Amino acid sequence: MAETRFSYEQLYLFAESVFKKIGCSSEHAATATKALLSADLRGIDSHGIARLSGYVRLWEAKRVNATPGIKIIHETPSTAVVDGDSGLGLVVAPFAMKVAIEKAKQAGTGWVSVQHSNHFGIAGYHAMMALEHDMIGLAMTNASPLVAPTFSIDKMLGTNPICVAAPAGNEPAFVADLATTTAANGKLEILQRKNADTPAGWVQDAEGNPSNDANILKKGGALLPLGGDREHGSHKGYALGAVVDIFSALLSGANYAPWVPPFPAYVPMPAQQPGKGIGHFLGAMRIDAFRPAGEFKAAMDHWIRGFRSCRTIPGEEKVLVPGDPEREYEAERRMNGIPLLDPVVKDLQALSEKFLVELP
Amino acid sequence: MAETRFSYEQLYLFAESVFKKIGCSSEHAATATKALLSADLRGIDSHGIARLSGYVRLWEAKRVNATPGIKIIHETPSTAVVDGDSGLGLVVAPFAMKVAIEKAKQAGTGWVSVQHSNHFGIAGYHAMMALEHDMIGLAMTNASPLVAPTFSIDKMLGTNPICVAAPAGNEPAFVADLATTTAANGKLEILQRKNADTPAGWVQDAEGNPSNDANILKKGGALLPLGGDREHGSHKGYALGAVVDIFSALLSGANYAPWVPPFPAYVPMPAQQPGKGIGHFLGAMRIDAFRPAGEFKAAMDHWIRGFRSCRTIPGEEKVLVPGDPEREYEAERRMNGIPLLDPVVKDLQALSEKFLVELP
Repeated sequence: MAETRFSYEQLYLFAESVFKKIGCSSEHAATATKALLSADLRGIDSHGIARLSGYVRLWEAKRVNATPGIKIIHETPSTAVVDGDSGLGLVVAPFAMKVAIEKAKQAGTGWVSVQHSNHFGIAGYHAMMALEHDMIGLAMTNASPLVAPTFSIDKMLGTNPICVAAPAGNEPAFVADLATTTAANGKLEILQRKNADTPAGWVQDAEGNPSNDANILKKGGALLPLGGDREHGSHKGYALGAVVDIFSALLSGANYAPWVPPFPAYVPMPAQQPGKGIGHFLGAMRIDAFRPAGEFKAAMDHWIRGFRSCRTIPGEEKVLVPGDPEREYEAERRMNGIPLLDPVVKDLQALSEKFLVELP
Repeated sequence: MAETRFSYEQLYLFAESVFKKIGCSSEHAATATKALLSADLRGIDSHGIARLSGYVRLWEAKRVNATPGIKIIHETPSTAVVDGDSGLGLVVAPFAMKVAIEKAKQAGTGWVSVQHSNHFGIAGYHAMMALEHDMIGLAMTNASPLVAPTFSIDKMLGTNPICVAAPAGNEPAFVADLATTTAANGKLEILQRKNADTPAGWVQDAEGNPSNDANILKKGGALLPLGGDREHGSHKGYALGAVVDIFSALLSGANYAPWVPPFPAYVPMPAQQPGKGIGHFLGAMRIDAFRPAGEFKAAMDHWIRGFRSCRTIPGEEKVLVPGDPEREYEAERRMNGIPLLDPVVKDLQALSEKFLVELP
């Protein structure tokens, strides 16, 4: 499929302008744009500017509040609950992460559960906010139900990602950012474009049978938890996705399990709403609340070099450290621009016309 | 293979006596016994009394200190680092978990990284200590290297388990306790006894090729991270195991990656030791540091019932909630006794003769 490259700066100006046009303050528009485009930079194209029109449609459907009064509704020295007031998750989650970081400065760690929010982009952006403070960052979010637990036909969990970011010294930071499913939805979309089948263990059909159909979600099928089936440990992926739901929504008072609001604005809201909006969980641990940051970072360098120097299995060139692929994408795309597929460019052109914002 | 059932009380008296014979105080012997036997009760036979002789051999090899001076060596309001003084992990981890719980009472959460420890039994025991305090408990530990990261021939991580335990109201607690590998080592041992092959994605051979040989670890092979291979998400299992290593050992100053001391006393210690002993990470989050515990537990009940009422895939009877299988084992074994295979009974008889302790 044809694609066009745009510089980060071009896309930044465009997205920021669109966020302002829907009513975001300058500060919120900048925050949302940085969080959104971090996905494009890091090669997670499904979560970047391709979703800008989706966020706009949620605002049009009055499911996103462009001028939220985000606030702390409960706190202790190391915890807080944040009410996102239905704002963009791209704005609410950085607010909450800043609270976690401030708590960690005082109490050693900070843990913030968030209710009444919306999709927050990639978990990695929020977790990585901790790095410059010599803290370990943690971010997770629940999401609308696409995943069937082990043995279930019904879809009960989202792809519920977890990110942990830890600083190193001379080596780049360790950044593990993963959906708790075998494959994220974006991987299915790539196969759909190629008209290709999925490997075993990615999806099941509407009756709960194993499937290789990359379009199966549109036919009532489900994504499978990391592991794929019981024999390959899917009960572990299911358990991890469940932990994300509990930390993000049960602790905060957000919606959980199959009652999490959908991202596409054309999908009706669940009839039952046991909580408010969607939920996130953000954490920050100050390294020197455990040991001197310099010691930790030297040990991280040693750890990382150990993994990089592993012998590789046949056909592979190198052993990667979590965060390597995304960092390589970012270096390349900052230099050569961010490639957008034609349908995404068309989407941006439509936004350009709607809001009279030039697409540079 | 023939087995004999022993009551919990019989095994308790025996194990407690053996721990005292190697020099543990009454308090430590009781703590270690409870932690050890929780594995037998919960059906995780590989981590229970079958390992008692292994702990004794570590003491004989002077790798376990039966009279450790366990202490906090650094702390902030919500964090601590504990030095286990080479004690049994079965004693050190409950000490650290108590510290985490006390911190959580004051600061909302408590997070304790542990150095200079040994194997701590099942993660579930330690995490579940938080439940009676209306807290969420978290426990993880690193372990000696059996697992090859994605694309690696070399074994760099242990099975590095994670447990998260969250209280519910009328429903039993949610307890997710999982190794970050496709299958734990105990599952291989079951197949070895049956002379059966492993499913795909569990192990690889000494050259890094896929294997189905349940005995492959003895031939230089490796366990694989949850996911099995790259196409099925093994980079996620690898990342999770790495997070466990970082939290448990890089934060505390314990040994990490391939330098974690082995459990079998006959395996030589790694030549290089970048830290002290093995590492754990224990956490406690007070529910009402986020929202009233009653509200949370009512939501957990609703969540759990939602999962239990899912339609099942063909051939399966029910959708389980994490913790269900272990709780069912415990109910049955408390009633009918704990079945021990003949080699385990012989092992206990040898301990009985060595220490002049009656096996009831």
